[in-house]
Amino acid sequence: MSSKEVVEAFLHPKSVAIIGASTNPKKGGSRIIQNLIDHKFQGKIHPVNRKSGSVFNLEFKKTVLEIEGEVDLAVLYVPNRFIPGVLEECIQKGVKGVIVQAAGFEEVGDFGLIDQIKEITDNYKKIRILGPNCMGITRVDSDNTGFFSGFNSAMALRGNIAVISQSGMLNGGYLTYLGVKYPGIGFRYNASIGNKSDLSEIEFLEYFISDDTVNIIAIYLESFKYPRKFLELANKVKKMSDKTIILLKGGITLQGSKATMSHTGSIAGDFRLTKGLIKQSGVIQAHSFNELFQLTRTFSMIYTAGLKMPVEGNFAFLTTSGGAGTVSTDLLTHYGLKFPELGDEQFNKIAEVFPPWMKPNKFSLLDLWPAMEHQASKGDRGLVYRVTLEALLGDPKIDAIGSMVFCASHTVKFVNTLIEHQKKYKKPIFCWLLGPDYHEVSQKLDKNNIPNFLNLENLVLNFKSLVQNSKSKKLHIKN
Amino acid sequence: MSSKEVVEAFLHPKSVAIIGASTNPKKGGSRIIQNLIDHKFQGKIHPVNRKSGSVFNLEFKKTVLEIEGEVDLAVLYVPNRFIPGVLEECIQKGVKGVIVQAAGFEEVGDFGLIDQIKEITDNYKKIRILGPNCMGITRVDSDNTGFFSGFNSAMALRGNIAVISQSGMLNGGYLTYLGVKYPGIGFRYNASIGNKSDLSEIEFLEYFISDDTVNIIAIYLESFKYPRKFLELANKVKKMSDKTIILLKGGITLQGSKATMSHTGSIAGDFRLTKGLIKQSGVIQAHSFNELFQLTRTFSMIYTAGLKMPVEGNFAFLTTSGGAGTVSTDLLTHYGLKFPELGDEQFNKIAEVFPPWMKPNKFSLLDLWPAMEHQASKGDRGLVYRVTLEALLGDPKIDAIGSMVFCASHTVKFVNTLIEHQKKYKKPIFCWLLGPDYHEVSQKLDKNNIPNFLNLENLVLNFKSLVQNSKSKKLHIKN
Repeated sequence: MSSKEVVEAFLHPKSVAIIGASTNPKKGGSRIIQNLIDHKFQGKIHPVNRKSGSVFNLEFKKTVLEIEGEVDLAVLYVPNRFIPGVLEECIQKGVKGVIVQAAGFEEVGDFGLIDQIKEITDNYKKIRILGPNCMGITRVDSDNTGFFSGFNSAMALRGNIAVISQSGMLNGGYLTYLGVKYPGIGFRYNASIGNKSDLSEIEFLEYFISDDTVNIIAIYLESFKYPRKFLELANKVKKMSDKTIILLKGGITLQGSKATMSHTGSIAGDFRLTKGLIKQSGVIQAHSFNELFQLTRTFSMIYTAGLKMPVEGNFAFLTTSGGAGTVSTDLLTHYGLKFPELGDEQFNKIAEVFPPWMKPNKFSLLDLWPAMEHQASKGDRGLVYRVTLEALLGDPKIDAIGSMVFCASHTVKFVNTLIEHQKKYKKPIFCWLLGPDYHEVSQKLDKNNIPNFLNLENLVLNFKSLVQNSKSKKLHIKN
Repeated sequence: MSSKEVVEAFLHPKSVAIIGASTNPKKGGSRIIQNLIDHKFQGKIHPVNRKSGSVFNLEFKKTVLEIEGEVDLAVLYVPNRFIPGVLEECIQKGVKGVIVQAAGFEEVGDFGLIDQIKEITDNYKKIRILGPNCMGITRVDSDNTGFFSGFNSAMALRGNIAVISQSGMLNGGYLTYLGVKYPGIGFRYNASIGNKSDLSEIEFLEYFISDDTVNIIAIYLESFKYPRKFLELANKVKKMSDKTIILLKGGITLQGSKATMSHTGSIAGDFRLTKGLIKQSGVIQAHSFNELFQLTRTFSMIYTAGLKMPVEGNFAFLTTSGGAGTVSTDLLTHYGLKFPELGDEQFNKIAEVFPPWMKPNKFSLLDLWPAMEHQASKGDRGLVYRVTLEALLGDPKIDAIGSMVFCASHTVKFVNTLIEHQKKYKKPIFCWLLGPDYHEVSQKLDKNNIPNFLNLENLVLNFKSLVQNSKSKKLHIKN
């Protein structure tokens, strides 16, 4: 089988055996089947258990060998001591791939079982293995529908993100959390690779690179299985205008690499070498789970809405408070953002909505409060934003807009103005939310692919990562 | 009048005139009176307007001179051109202080009016002025009750925080927002000082330092009016075990100082000198409004709950996921936190709840997942946290605990365990929240004075600021 066919068996199986199926709805062996059914898996489901029984009207088979027809994939949920026997049966049946969810291998120093598995599978030639110590595979076809093989019941919307993770928590509970925190975020695949004794980040990365439904590949790794191959694939992505890799690498400090040891048993190697590798790869590096998914969300929005990626890093920032304006200017300057001088035409358009006794700044950091007070007395505050957005977004020098959004009951109209203008000009409008109704406003912006943040620092980081991404691509993609 | 008596007239007036009172509920001149009444101001309220009329059953007086009895404070809400005349009447009446909310002075280059005011008041000898360009004063006596003189109707709980701010947005809308974001946060005073033509941060800082009901003084400044005096007061606070100043200084970059110019008209001076001044003052420096109030909230919790301030910076961190453990370790190490080796006694206690085949770390960064799985099979997962918290909090080497909290429906019991242990040992337990139910959990922790954060970076910053604060005090307070 080619590497692509192997991954295909894990991501798009037509027939799946659950070995260690259970009638107890609280046990993983039942929850996996429930998840497959709840999410309308279109393939065949075969529960397997030595004891007789049935779940969801599916009769247990004693072994995979009793199953009629082909089996692409087996999900093992059995105690470790049964694994060798079950594997031999799977090989005999001609099963293509096996997901081993159980933990307790290298991470506890028990290499004996892994050695035994290597022998049985002839070094993974006879059958391919995902795990051990993993949470399975998810494929989303349409919202909450597809192939959900983990025992965690994370619901998910369909989107352009593929996740590869060496931490089960991330594949499982964390995604449930993201669904609440960023209700608009959508996924295509979610691969938990665990201790990666056989399949690793490499095979999945390769697959996702050639899959048109994926734009963002979000990766959490504790070790690089084949650093050279990783670099090679990352270099391929540099030349693709519709793909971005975002990587969170655990164990990049000495203490962190010690923690890695006790987790997936990975040997983090020299964490200084790792730093060099990440830099060379040109991937976007995240430093926390939060950053990983905030960046993933932003890139997903830009690709989904078909916006122009900012290239030069020229920003325009709008506030409606002098104090917030001052502090934002400090922070934005500190983080190295560039605010170009406005052209005469742009400046004059904007100056027209300002009171004659208080002109706006000449550089693209504007406190609109005086203009809003001025226009309010004439009955149309909204005019200020419309005129300013038109002028700035129409300026080819400006890559993206940032705007403070004070979220209160009267914000709805203004939010609609932002949505319309991002759609019209195809340039991202980053929103910095504050004010009591931030939760509702955030949800609305999420649905309309407008990146929004509660911290200005996060807003800056996300904008700068977009610029980093397009600078790298500009160097590598020939026009 | 002494400086204390002056501030007293602004913070604790017995009789207030609202000059520019209005019958239109949408206008500031009506909303100020509404706010005083809604928040049960116990002093006398005198609406003043040349036109006759009444609001809330209070008859308008034509001028302050018609008011019977003394007037401590006048709030001016009139067009700029009327200010000189009104001020002369206030002086004649013997009013002690005047709040000038109107904008349009130095910030638009109109120094003429300020010069005129200086002449009329004989350089503020005849009457004291707060503003112009400010949002008034708030004093909270009990929840939502006290002296609320701004036109913004921010509701507020009583607490141990005093705010001094040169940005009206912060005094106004931002506090409403904080009430939603951090529902437990409570204030004692909120002073908007605006362009500070007369009264400045100095008089209020001095007053709050000597006010026993205040523990935290949160300040936003665009300029230091008297840098030397500020340093002197900050040095006084270094010697006080129950006071902390947290400062956000706007205009600390060249661009930011330009923005300052157009806001309050302050001349930011050399922003490099400012940096030195802040460092020397030993105050806790915030870099954004978000940081300012997150730090303020944390200090408020520590003082309110009477917890021991961390001094050495020794931390213990608990996770329930290997991946999160690894990434947290990286971040926490990167930010310079110290994780002491556990003593034998502590280690043995904790090791007892772990499975025999997987011992915990020897240093105070613990992934409790294996122990929780192990104890779950025996029916009491909660045991793991109880035993670990007892062992770590009982260790005199450890200043504070950090814990990952995955917020889901089953988290309630665990949260109660955290609350009990912080109460018992009087050491802060910092929580890093993730998981779908983070909003509910955050509210519960807020009410119980347990600092909680959605980002690990913020958790670290807040812990380190507590350490900075107590190190400075340790140097300056003689035992």
